[in-house]
Amino acid sequence: MSHDGRVSTTDNTETTARRRGRRPAGQDTRTALIEAARTVFAENGYDGATVRAIATRAGVDAAMVNHWFGSKEGLFAQAVLKLPFDPLELLEILRDGPDDELAERIVRTFITRWDSAGGGVFVALIRSVTGHEQAGHVLRDFFQKFFTALISSVGADNPELRMTLCASQMVGMGMVRYVAKFEPLATEDVEVIVRAVAPNLQRYLTGDLG
Amino acid sequence: MSHDGRVSTTDNTETTARRRGRRPAGQDTRTALIEAARTVFAENGYDGATVRAIATRAGVDAAMVNHWFGSKEGLFAQAVLKLPFDPLELLEILRDGPDDELAERIVRTFITRWDSAGGGVFVALIRSVTGHEQAGHVLRDFFQKFFTALISSVGADNPELRMTLCASQMVGMGMVRYVAKFEPLATEDVEVIVRAVAPNLQRYLTGDLG
Repeated sequence: MSHDGRVSTTDNTETTARRRGRRPAGQDTRTALIEAARTVFAENGYDGATVRAIATRAGVDAAMVNHWFGSKEGLFAQAVLKLPFDPLELLEILRDGPDDELAERIVRTFITRWDSAGGGVFVALIRSVTGHEQAGHVLRDFFQKFFTALISSVGADNPELRMTLCASQMVGMGMVRYVAKFEPLATEDVEVIVRAVAPNLQRYLTGDLG
Repeated sequence: MSHDGRVSTTDNTETTARRRGRRPAGQDTRTALIEAARTVFAENGYDGATVRAIATRAGVDAAMVNHWFGSKEGLFAQAVLKLPFDPLELLEILRDGPDDELAERIVRTFITRWDSAGGGVFVALIRSVTGHEQAGHVLRDFFQKFFTALISSVGADNPELRMTLCASQMVGMGMVRYVAKFEPLATEDVEVIVRAVAPNLQRYLTGDLG
């Protein structure tokens, strides 16, 4: 485990999932960490919020963050974004394949996971962003780190602009499929969406932006 | 004026703007129509809400809808979507040019108008969609009519899917630029955004969707 609270992600996903399985005895710790994390992220932004500060506010050992959430990213994803997955684990999955199919993996993975979590997760995310200026900043910090990590691995120029263009497509897809529920996109088959959207996202990731 | 309450759009924009200029004496009528429209659109959806029903609820003559808002579309745009422009007038502008530059006109026109209205309009729109299931339906009906009219003019197959894909890109652009305010997209020059986004939107409008 490194000093910034990130755990190694070389262990396989199944082990990770078991290790984080909810144990009734620890639920108080987990809940306290989530509540502390919401406050500390809102007060200090994503980069300014340390694992140590969150653990101190929750009154537990800093190792509990890694035990329950795998990493600061994982805690943020579950406490603030309420995402049903660990972003570090997701990064591993998305990086695993040819660069020119990165967009295809992103679209397929996000839609599949959002679908299986039910649209409610996305609605809650958008509400929190529209309701609190601070949540927008925190989400932006997080997205920036997440997509910059992805984009830097394919080595394209202008990663910041590419990151926000990707965000515009994926956030808009979530809005239309889960929040506004425009048909046919709201119920369209995942693979139809992948074929329609992935080439556009791939252009944002690695193409000529004009 | 046709039986469905649409006015001719052959008069030029300047005349239209003057005709709709706010006159203190009529503000009560205008306000009453906006309030009535919100209720009737929410109760009956976009298609089910008639100009006559809205005027009756507001206690004014149906001709007042056209006088103050130009059309049912204009009333909807201003009462429910709080858009700072008349969608029929916008359709004319967007249709005026080569088909293969339609996306460029859409991106440039929307961003320019949203920018000049301030991001608040977009935030209000998203809040109303996330806050009320009904608002989502009404917005979808409207978007469907608006983009279907645009897409049918370029004659591509599968207009419904194309319409929702376009909506996903434009709604996401609004979310990222005005609500979450991701940099650099939040403050990026309009023409940079046009060059980056228009080719993607054009593919959704007329390209091969796979």
